[in-house]
Amino acid sequence: MAIRFAARMAGIPASAVRELLKLTARRDLISFGGGLPPNECFPLEALSEAAARVLAERGADALQYSTTEGCAELRRAVAQRMQARLGIDTSPDQILITAGSQQAIDLTGRIFLDEGDIVFCESPTYLAALNAFRVWRPRLVDVPSDDNGMIVSELARTLEACDRSRAKLVYVVPDFQNPTGRTWSLERRLELLDVAARHELPVIEDSPYRELRFEGGTIPPIKSLDRRGLVVFLSTFSKILSPGLRLGWVAGPPAVIEKYVLGKQGADLHTSTFTQLLVTALLERFDLDSHVERIRDVCRVRRDAMVAALERELPGDVRFTRPSGGLFLWLELPAQLDARQLLRLGLQHGVAFPPGEPFFANGGHANTLRLAYSDSPEPRIAEGIGRLGAAYRHLAGTARQHTLDEAIVATVP
Amino acid sequence: MAIRFAARMAGIPASAVRELLKLTARRDLISFGGGLPPNECFPLEALSEAAARVLAERGADALQYSTTEGCAELRRAVAQRMQARLGIDTSPDQILITAGSQQAIDLTGRIFLDEGDIVFCESPTYLAALNAFRVWRPRLVDVPSDDNGMIVSELARTLEACDRSRAKLVYVVPDFQNPTGRTWSLERRLELLDVAARHELPVIEDSPYRELRFEGGTIPPIKSLDRRGLVVFLSTFSKILSPGLRLGWVAGPPAVIEKYVLGKQGADLHTSTFTQLLVTALLERFDLDSHVERIRDVCRVRRDAMVAALERELPGDVRFTRPSGGLFLWLELPAQLDARQLLRLGLQHGVAFPPGEPFFANGGHANTLRLAYSDSPEPRIAEGIGRLGAAYRHLAGTARQHTLDEAIVATVP
Repeated sequence: MAIRFAARMAGIPASAVRELLKLTARRDLISFGGGLPPNECFPLEALSEAAARVLAERGADALQYSTTEGCAELRRAVAQRMQARLGIDTSPDQILITAGSQQAIDLTGRIFLDEGDIVFCESPTYLAALNAFRVWRPRLVDVPSDDNGMIVSELARTLEACDRSRAKLVYVVPDFQNPTGRTWSLERRLELLDVAARHELPVIEDSPYRELRFEGGTIPPIKSLDRRGLVVFLSTFSKILSPGLRLGWVAGPPAVIEKYVLGKQGADLHTSTFTQLLVTALLERFDLDSHVERIRDVCRVRRDAMVAALERELPGDVRFTRPSGGLFLWLELPAQLDARQLLRLGLQHGVAFPPGEPFFANGGHANTLRLAYSDSPEPRIAEGIGRLGAAYRHLAGTARQHTLDEAIVATVP
Repeated sequence: MAIRFAARMAGIPASAVRELLKLTARRDLISFGGGLPPNECFPLEALSEAAARVLAERGADALQYSTTEGCAELRRAVAQRMQARLGIDTSPDQILITAGSQQAIDLTGRIFLDEGDIVFCESPTYLAALNAFRVWRPRLVDVPSDDNGMIVSELARTLEACDRSRAKLVYVVPDFQNPTGRTWSLERRLELLDVAARHELPVIEDSPYRELRFEGGTIPPIKSLDRRGLVVFLSTFSKILSPGLRLGWVAGPPAVIEKYVLGKQGADLHTSTFTQLLVTALLERFDLDSHVERIRDVCRVRRDAMVAALERELPGDVRFTRPSGGLFLWLELPAQLDARQLLRLGLQHGVAFPPGEPFFANGGHANTLRLAYSDSPEPRIAEGIGRLGAAYRHLAGTARQHTLDEAIVATVP
């Protein structure tokens, strides 16, 4: 029986990262695939205590339907935390609780994007945001980016040249970006606000990693600098507490939050009442700040281990970022090498990672790849990067042989 | 600052039912608004025990990212339950776990509907499905329906007359339908499969209430009768366990489930690992079948109380359904009366309910309304329907006065 699907489904590939995550079940494989927070850092006992307390104290309310906006207690706790930890002035009625920040991204597309609308993003950017936006069939435009973030003068130039009525959003991940680990400078943040204000362009600031800074001074969130009500801020408990609870949030101007709420109503009515009250109860007695510090410490040591292993195992013509926070670093192989071929060889050697090309809105950059160091203990990182080194030598050797072969062929009269 | 939203947002009203749910916080108000399962029936202690067990035994796995398809253990449990309780032959790889069946409906639109595609549905049908579909800007066509379900000969007639390339789906709620409480006869189910096969038209069978039958023999699910792989079955733990956990599922042919998985990947990555493993652990030690029987008993008594109160408080020209299961019944006022006016008066008397018009894909039927009996104890039902009766007498009195006034005006020369 021939079942016909929507045309949009042809444009949505399976997420390479999610597919890779499935491989992590293969015990012999070391995967640097998903941006998983460290398994060692989940507060199992505190959550168990909080679960018992919520069910005993809140009873049926914890298991019944609740409002689309999210539970009042959790919205209050999130608003307070944004104020205290991020310096963002907000209030509970400007918060919508979502199923992780992935849903916040999906709802962003839903409420903003008509077919053909333009979304500007970094080059590269978060792969699953690209795929979430693609559902709405926009034009995704990647703006050249460097170690200080998006090159905003390039954004301005592109904006001048494009059909202004179709320019709808700028989507950015300014802190310890996925996939590169890069952080925007303050100057670029201010420049972006300036361009956004000039063009009345909403900015989606996706900020799941911000609290995981290992060193150096913090740089204010773009939203904390916004005086025009143009920035919508997305974040999540996934990296500071647990991704398996699927709790994230959107913070934005009331008129924008209202649209997100309408979008969420159709998407899933509301996020789990139980997990919302569970986290609220946890926060009452659990020191989340110290907990985040523990996660940070674990990730810092792992970043160091991966940087050291990469320096040891790979030659100098492979460049990589040295992020000062977050979960990821980013590799650039010599231009003629293909990270997908490296992955194929890597799988033979027992190591996996996502090739970089799908992180670019408009493709290309086949010589790049992402490595997550967050969920592998140091010996596993050393072993895995050792395997990556072996695969790399294999790949580079083959490439050299090809070049030699071509040279020989060229000398044959 | 003028923020521009997607054009689709203009066509998506806030759900009248969700907005009503917010009113339930007003303590003096008796709301027959939401289809809430009885507060008395949540297995608080068993869930508390299961939560402690999951965190102790599964540790980090319960809080980490998991696969989009859903946890293998829960997919297995759902497949077994579908076999045992619903007579539907399926397997874990044909199940996708979703955030309630609302997300399953949303994903249905996402993977099937292009703008202008036709969705056939009952008249009336589930309001939040209409709104979820509207995101994709289809043509929603309501097919005349009676106490035996959709009048399938009318569907066939409409199909013959329409652009076949745009006919994409039939969406039906065959058991204790929301909003009418009606159940399809076996004959109509077989007729629908016949028409669907003839036109290669997928059938979405939304079945959240099926296990809540109070009396009479069960009629097989449409999916259990399907030999052509055309039926996608949606269901949920919301009505048999807890809506606040937000756990539902889609069961369908592997090629269709694959598309749902792609859709869900972008929507929220996956449903909460913790709530999935929580329910899996609960099912290991908790007798869900006896539990469902308790919910059924409570709802049956409340249905009886509401039917008796309606017979007592409302005159014979108000017609209403007497459902043999589920959470809802459906009222038709005399044709000249407007349920929105009744709601306005009802709020003054301290009773709320959703007017029926939004449940019709193409509007009209302003004289109808839905009442949920499931979450109100009998004295509250008696009191609430008493208030409804008072509001009704007020409305009918005013209407009579208008008619008299018009008659007097008409006699003035």
